[in-house]
Amino acid sequence: MKIAAFEFDGRSALGRVDGEEVVVLHEGETGPALLSLIEANGAGADGGSERVPLSAVKLLPPVVSPRAAVFCVGKNYHAHAKEFFGSGFDSSAKEEVPSQPVIFAKAGSCLVGQGDAVDASLDPTATVDYEGELAIVMGKTAHRVAKADAYDYVFGYTVCNDVTSRELQKRHNQWLIGKSLDTFGPLGPWIVTADELGDVRELELITTVNGEVRQKAKVADLIFDIPTLIETLTATMTLQPGDIIATGTPAGVGIGFKPPRYLQPGDRMEVSISGIGTLANPVV
Amino acid sequence: MKIAAFEFDGRSALGRVDGEEVVVLHEGETGPALLSLIEANGAGADGGSERVPLSAVKLLPPVVSPRAAVFCVGKNYHAHAKEFFGSGFDSSAKEEVPSQPVIFAKAGSCLVGQGDAVDASLDPTATVDYEGELAIVMGKTAHRVAKADAYDYVFGYTVCNDVTSRELQKRHNQWLIGKSLDTFGPLGPWIVTADELGDVRELELITTVNGEVRQKAKVADLIFDIPTLIETLTATMTLQPGDIIATGTPAGVGIGFKPPRYLQPGDRMEVSISGIGTLANPVV
Repeated sequence: MKIAAFEFDGRSALGRVDGEEVVVLHEGETGPALLSLIEANGAGADGGSERVPLSAVKLLPPVVSPRAAVFCVGKNYHAHAKEFFGSGFDSSAKEEVPSQPVIFAKAGSCLVGQGDAVDASLDPTATVDYEGELAIVMGKTAHRVAKADAYDYVFGYTVCNDVTSRELQKRHNQWLIGKSLDTFGPLGPWIVTADELGDVRELELITTVNGEVRQKAKVADLIFDIPTLIETLTATMTLQPGDIIATGTPAGVGIGFKPPRYLQPGDRMEVSISGIGTLANPVV
Repeated sequence: MKIAAFEFDGRSALGRVDGEEVVVLHEGETGPALLSLIEANGAGADGGSERVPLSAVKLLPPVVSPRAAVFCVGKNYHAHAKEFFGSGFDSSAKEEVPSQPVIFAKAGSCLVGQGDAVDASLDPTATVDYEGELAIVMGKTAHRVAKADAYDYVFGYTVCNDVTSRELQKRHNQWLIGKSLDTFGPLGPWIVTADELGDVRELELITTVNGEVRQKAKVADLIFDIPTLIETLTATMTLQPGDIIATGTPAGVGIGFKPPRYLQPGDRMEVSISGIGTLANPVV
């Protein structure tokens, strides 16, 4: 199932995407309703009667809490780790390929949904870059989860564009500032439940800018795979239902080019993952 | 005023600390009530009639959302920046004293309140360290705030102990993992409103371990002062009422000693800030 948070006729709602329509499951604040749905492992999501055209709704980032940070993984595809290390913007690492997952947070305040504009003017250094990523939506309270059990803790998946100011990322050493500019967190268009996707390692991610393919990779190419990420995070932390882990971006980001190809107002980014959908956002 | 979130007789509540008593202001979920109080700039906090002994309540971390990350500042006192850079654990910086604020997140899931145990057994590397810090509680939605106006956006202050696994902090390059182990975020004991504190630069922070003074500094010693931190964060991000910024720790952390003096089960940490109070937590 595809679970979407959206606005329609001034109302906010949670719904199930069914072809070109959305079936309304809950009206009102979407975060608590999404949490309930996740905690019920999707039970009840096949209900609802009111249908609205998908084209008529404004999709919201599908999150339980607008204040929760997104956990993000840096340098998690070999070719990207190499391009980033070689770019001169890697403030963090002494090694090209990390020996342990590099995990940072993107502030919840930067999240936007499908179609929302990414405001490049907020970056005074004009070094805005895209990063298409598969994002995990956790399904259960998770502490000390072994790799073998990790997929049991996943509710579903969505798409994240971890938009970044490269100069701010470098300048502040730790990455939060460069990763959390307002509107720099496109997430969506919806959550696809895990049962619908089969083997997620076979999913393919493609990022385009103005229709030109920039990133193309299979999830199987992750350096630290999904079970390893969940094992690593929950070894010391407790993850909650609805927590989001953006798993890292493959090669092909703007700073991988010489000279770098930064985003400009008027550009259009699209991150597509097979079986999930396309997250499209204009740059203004 | 001192605003506390607490549990009493199995109920959760928000209240005003008055000497050795707490005056109950709201019963039920404390986060939304605290947000309302902050948004009202403390109006109504002088009300309430039920009084309970402070000694009989369990203080909770005074936060609006249990999922919100705490924004933290690294290497923000000169002597600490030097001791950390020289310790061999500084994965991030090429320079002893940062030229721009180093800002990272501590996951909301690690927060605990006054008296709660910090579980050192969660760190497999046994390199647990304390970091006493002054924390800012934001009072208003804040975007592009100039230094001169920054204090107008502060609701109050509290105390944070940014407990850290030094080896995990180093190993994962970005600091989230090493900073966010469950229970590694003591916060409290309460929020003191800004009007009660006068010039916060004059506040003195003292951290003791088993009664031995380890850290002692004035807030005036911050490299990047409070107006600069608020200006920096809000230059690109929007902060919300209730967001918390831990301003950084002074010299005297465990890794500042040779050999390092890591925390052990049985240790008792106390972080005191003049005018606010003492945040005390045992290590187990």
